[in-house]
Amino acid sequence: MDVVSETAKAARAERGPYRKGVQRRQEIVSAAAQVFAERGYNGGSLRSIGERVGVSSASLVQYFGTKEGLLTAVLEEWARESRPAGTDGLRGLAWMRSMREAMVYNATHRGLIELFLTLTAEATNPAHPARTFVQHRYAMVVAEHQRHLHEAVADGEVTPLSETEVEQEARLFVAAMDGIELQWLLDPRVDLLELFDRFLESTLARWAG
Amino acid sequence: MDVVSETAKAARAERGPYRKGVQRRQEIVSAAAQVFAERGYNGGSLRSIGERVGVSSASLVQYFGTKEGLLTAVLEEWARESRPAGTDGLRGLAWMRSMREAMVYNATHRGLIELFLTLTAEATNPAHPARTFVQHRYAMVVAEHQRHLHEAVADGEVTPLSETEVEQEARLFVAAMDGIELQWLLDPRVDLLELFDRFLESTLARWAG
Repeated sequence: MDVVSETAKAARAERGPYRKGVQRRQEIVSAAAQVFAERGYNGGSLRSIGERVGVSSASLVQYFGTKEGLLTAVLEEWARESRPAGTDGLRGLAWMRSMREAMVYNATHRGLIELFLTLTAEATNPAHPARTFVQHRYAMVVAEHQRHLHEAVADGEVTPLSETEVEQEARLFVAAMDGIELQWLLDPRVDLLELFDRFLESTLARWAG
Repeated sequence: MDVVSETAKAARAERGPYRKGVQRRQEIVSAAAQVFAERGYNGGSLRSIGERVGVSSASLVQYFGTKEGLLTAVLEEWARESRPAGTDGLRGLAWMRSMREAMVYNATHRGLIELFLTLTAEATNPAHPARTFVQHRYAMVVAEHQRHLHEAVADGEVTPLSETEVEQEARLFVAAMDGIELQWLLDPRVDLLELFDRFLESTLARWAG
């Protein structure tokens, strides 16, 4: 088998209809993310998503099956984009401090935060199709905070905490970030990073005992 | 003028078409609040609101003009219901502590919290019709927290804070409450009051210096 010519063929194929299909799919997911961020999932119609990229509702259904299928694609994209790199190797309070990088990232990706908070608030309704995703996301994020707070206690960076206290502190950390982001989205005078810095420093000082 | 018979006439009138109209109007506002809490303002249709109370979309328009008129009525009702009594005379940290009563109230009025958080998240979109209401609400709530924190500093309950620090602490207090409520709505295992109590006590201890 001629590998070179196979590769060349594949490259040609990528410039052809297949690549165009991938690109169109990506445009649709981006448009859907914008519309869901602005109007919510329930309030964002397939028609208005289609209009942004100049395709019919029927075409959207061809690509994604249903509106729920499109939501799944948007959530997958959101999860990929909202995960800032560089925190994986960190331990204990170094990881907690790296949440500041996440906030810097968020400050320049307003649409992602708007999308997540809008879908999260909608998903407080048990019947919402994003509920399971959002619940898993929170469970994962809280668990990550718990794990790193445990490490910080083990390393003597933080005074001893009971299991319940570690979970509560993890939840309060995540709660503060959500609430800060919400106020920032609503009021352009709110300085996201200044507010987060005060929260972070006072929390770390409190944990140090 | 015969006052008694005038009163009797008024009472008969209240049992008549006028009273029925007031009652119907109230039913519509309650149904709209439920639908907006479940699906958001953008996602909640006049048709689905009408179906809950057995009236046509045309009747809704007769009562409230537009969907936005109905939203205004829902927000007015929300503002009335969500204001727990008994905190008006309190000062400084006593007022801050009374936020626990607000949380106890919220814990038994899940629909009100769901309505407010859903509309707030939608209103992160500058074009949302509830945006001005939500922005005013936050400005007022943050200002109330600032005022009482100022009192606490003046009374020596809290160590001195700069003007900027008072505003930041007020915002972080409100942010924590929003974030805690969001997690509680998403996860039935979250204990709203336990989480709030830990937040409140650790914040008061931190402020005491």
